[in-house]
Amino acid sequence: MVRLANNHISIDCVVLGFDGSNLRVLLVKRSGKDENGEYNDMKLPGSLIYQDEDLDEAAMRVLHELTGVKDVPLQQFKTFGSKDRTRNLRDIVWLERAQQAHVERIVTVAYFAIVKLDAAMQRLVNRESAEWVPVGEVGTLAFDHNLIIAEALKSVRREVENNRSILFDLLPKKFTASQLRTLAEIIHGKELDVRNFHKKISQMPYVVPLEERQKGVAHRAARYFKFDRKIYNTSR
Amino acid sequence: MVRLANNHISIDCVVLGFDGSNLRVLLVKRSGKDENGEYNDMKLPGSLIYQDEDLDEAAMRVLHELTGVKDVPLQQFKTFGSKDRTRNLRDIVWLERAQQAHVERIVTVAYFAIVKLDAAMQRLVNRESAEWVPVGEVGTLAFDHNLIIAEALKSVRREVENNRSILFDLLPKKFTASQLRTLAEIIHGKELDVRNFHKKISQMPYVVPLEERQKGVAHRAARYFKFDRKIYNTSR
Repeated sequence: MVRLANNHISIDCVVLGFDGSNLRVLLVKRSGKDENGEYNDMKLPGSLIYQDEDLDEAAMRVLHELTGVKDVPLQQFKTFGSKDRTRNLRDIVWLERAQQAHVERIVTVAYFAIVKLDAAMQRLVNRESAEWVPVGEVGTLAFDHNLIIAEALKSVRREVENNRSILFDLLPKKFTASQLRTLAEIIHGKELDVRNFHKKISQMPYVVPLEERQKGVAHRAARYFKFDRKIYNTSR
Repeated sequence: MVRLANNHISIDCVVLGFDGSNLRVLLVKRSGKDENGEYNDMKLPGSLIYQDEDLDEAAMRVLHELTGVKDVPLQQFKTFGSKDRTRNLRDIVWLERAQQAHVERIVTVAYFAIVKLDAAMQRLVNRESAEWVPVGEVGTLAFDHNLIIAEALKSVRREVENNRSILFDLLPKKFTASQLRTLAEIIHGKELDVRNFHKKISQMPYVVPLEERQKGVAHRAARYFKFDRKIYNTSR
């Protein structure tokens, strides 16, 4: 008879935040010992689910317990269940010590959220255990967490293509064309032509130019814009 | 210490097919005994995963084993893990008999595929165990399978909104405006105005009218159309 999988279920959270110039992902610190001695690396906030909680509840609990962050719109996007995802001995040793249980195979249900990384959000984070790392500077993470982040970014891209207003939720209330372009470039994963982008903005009636300009900058002060959700909702 | 979930992982497949007039879902037959005696009902094709297979592999295996259907583009869309999804005693009894194992909680990774329900696809189906049931005529299914079908339809709708060519994959090579409208109504879950729809078709350069008309019909013979993928790809 073929063996059924002796599974554990975990959830992992990819919380992405835009701080005005960088897209960052919330990671937790991990340390332990392996064949090469002590190590310090990072992983996504994630853990096994409890018997009496639903998946969405587990996601909110684990994120809050491990990072301090709460009340973010976590959304399930994909489940990762490759039998190779616990191939790395370091991960198994770390996990069995952390969970005090024998672990054979783990299927993880991944969630993402994308938030404005403002001062209030920064204050929520428990700096002892968690850190906002620029997406471009993430090293090799535990398990398949690099893959999970890559897939989360794909989901974010699809969301933004369906609903462009998500971009504006991530920006400050007053933003420059350059900030909007930087964010769009990060989300779409490619550089955008500056002149074409300005033309594009001028064709978005819901991106409203303000009289106000940047202050105290070395270069030519850029104009601020604001997002008008009412116009956006009626113009689609 | 809080109890970790003793989980089993299953996969469930929602295979939807359009036969030219109905959207049907592929279900498998289930029978057993409960407190009211013998029963016959239906469920989605699904089962627990094996230790040595990945999730996508399990989905293809289970679908083929239970229905005979293979080579359909199964796509993971959502994982269902409510602790209440095995609340129904009938489901637990059936499952423990089928799996010969004690089952506490099952998290299921759901897949969908949408296919053209033509003669070749009909021939694949093992009629002893499986059946194509019109989506509107599906009764109360095992576990939370009615919910899983509803969520699959939402995913299909999103897919079609992103890529309208999926609709045409489901239609016969030559189709009438009425067939296209029926399919669009089913996918979007609402009636569409006939005149507006004809106008809409005339604005789709990739829906090409043919000289040919329906034959042997009681009503006025409708014109056939064909889908031109080249025009579609260049016109978006």
